[in-house]
Amino acid sequence: MCMSRPEQVLTKRILTDVKALQTKRGRDEQRKFIVEGWKAIADAVAAGAECDILLYDPASVKDAKQLNRLSRGFQAVYPARTKELESIADAVTTQGVIGVFAQLDHRAAFTAVLKKSASVIVAVDGINDPGNLGTIIRACDWFGVDAVLTSEQSVDLYNPKTVRATMGSLFHLPVLSGVALPAMLMQCRNEGFTVYSTELEKSTDVRSVPFAAKSVIIIGSESHGVSSPVSALAQERILIPSFGKAESLNAAMACSVILARIRL
Amino acid sequence: MCMSRPEQVLTKRILTDVKALQTKRGRDEQRKFIVEGWKAIADAVAAGAECDILLYDPASVKDAKQLNRLSRGFQAVYPARTKELESIADAVTTQGVIGVFAQLDHRAAFTAVLKKSASVIVAVDGINDPGNLGTIIRACDWFGVDAVLTSEQSVDLYNPKTVRATMGSLFHLPVLSGVALPAMLMQCRNEGFTVYSTELEKSTDVRSVPFAAKSVIIIGSESHGVSSPVSALAQERILIPSFGKAESLNAAMACSVILARIRL
Repeated sequence: MCMSRPEQVLTKRILTDVKALQTKRGRDEQRKFIVEGWKAIADAVAAGAECDILLYDPASVKDAKQLNRLSRGFQAVYPARTKELESIADAVTTQGVIGVFAQLDHRAAFTAVLKKSASVIVAVDGINDPGNLGTIIRACDWFGVDAVLTSEQSVDLYNPKTVRATMGSLFHLPVLSGVALPAMLMQCRNEGFTVYSTELEKSTDVRSVPFAAKSVIIIGSESHGVSSPVSALAQERILIPSFGKAESLNAAMACSVILARIRL
Repeated sequence: MCMSRPEQVLTKRILTDVKALQTKRGRDEQRKFIVEGWKAIADAVAAGAECDILLYDPASVKDAKQLNRLSRGFQAVYPARTKELESIADAVTTQGVIGVFAQLDHRAAFTAVLKKSASVIVAVDGINDPGNLGTIIRACDWFGVDAVLTSEQSVDLYNPKTVRATMGSLFHLPVLSGVALPAMLMQCRNEGFTVYSTELEKSTDVRSVPFAAKSVIIIGSESHGVSSPVSALAQERILIPSFGKAESLNAAMACSVILARIRL
């Protein structure tokens, strides 16, 4: 097998550092996160994410060329035992490969979005479920949303379950996480955005809402809705009317339906 | 505490029978399933589901009246230890209560739906993720879908994760599970329905599709799409156009977006 560089030895120290990325604290300290699986890692590399280290199980390598190609971008590449990989991975099946990446810094890209004459921003306020957050980001990608903001109260963007649920979309559009939403929404309003909040009460049927060219859509948590300080900054409250007996619509579905109304 | 009937003693035999409902085989044999949590059980009772037995942890009862009210509909009510409930429940927090219900028989209701002059049916073909299936049923409820069909290849409707994700919607509309879809779709066509399949290739943009008053919408699995025998019976293939870089849209989102287009 022809590697692009000599293989390095996985020390206990490195393994401990990577394992620490399982927790938000570890991720915050190192400003890194984990991506699991060949396809997801290849997507991240292709999208230009800053690659740190790659750990792979030699037994799982079906395509030496793929490994070789992927390896090039990383600072270091380590063969690892199945057990070592399993001790790090969140997914039930690791696929035998784990990539460590630097957390994304989309601040400059976001500033550009604020200045565009037409753009849609989705602001996520207090979503706790990592799968839900990831699915929202994936839907935002599908519908060509310009940027996503997640509030300080939302689940960590770099939670492995969130990363997996985005299906690569995390790398396709600017996502700013841990944002103090009220201050940011004021900034959006100052840049000419209209802020829409999805709420069940005192709201206008989404069918009667002509969305502005510069729109911010706030998606609240399923259990507590949009928080008061955030809701207070919305210029319009919108709802998706119900035709059945369900008490609520899943946050990611509500997001998709509103984005479809804007785009389609 | 004033119970509506003398409390019964939870035998090992009963516990074993309830535990067997954790598996599809056990559920199929007994034709029963489990609902966890006070609110979910109250919803099921309110919706007229056929109640079998109720197991509760006396320490978790905050509202004796609620317990009393709920108990009335059940064949038997047993106090149980926290550990016993935990050994049965799928959720991390059981809330101290588990209800066993008879599986739903919606065949008569479905026959009525087939005869209506206007109705929307959603047919789920091969969805494997219980959370996804539950969320689809919840969205169908929100948008007033008349009936849902799930194929034999789809995850079990009575999987506790599916039941939980429906958030009570399982009891709000007729859902027929384990259906041989090709034969059923022929029957729908014979009753005047137009069958639409959501597919990424050789499909018409959903914006140019005037849905018929009697419509069947087929939602395929995320990994394999709609299966060939099912796809062959569709009269129209539809897609939701993409505006970004995501490779696909989550099946439940696609379902919501199409239903929103039909209803809104």
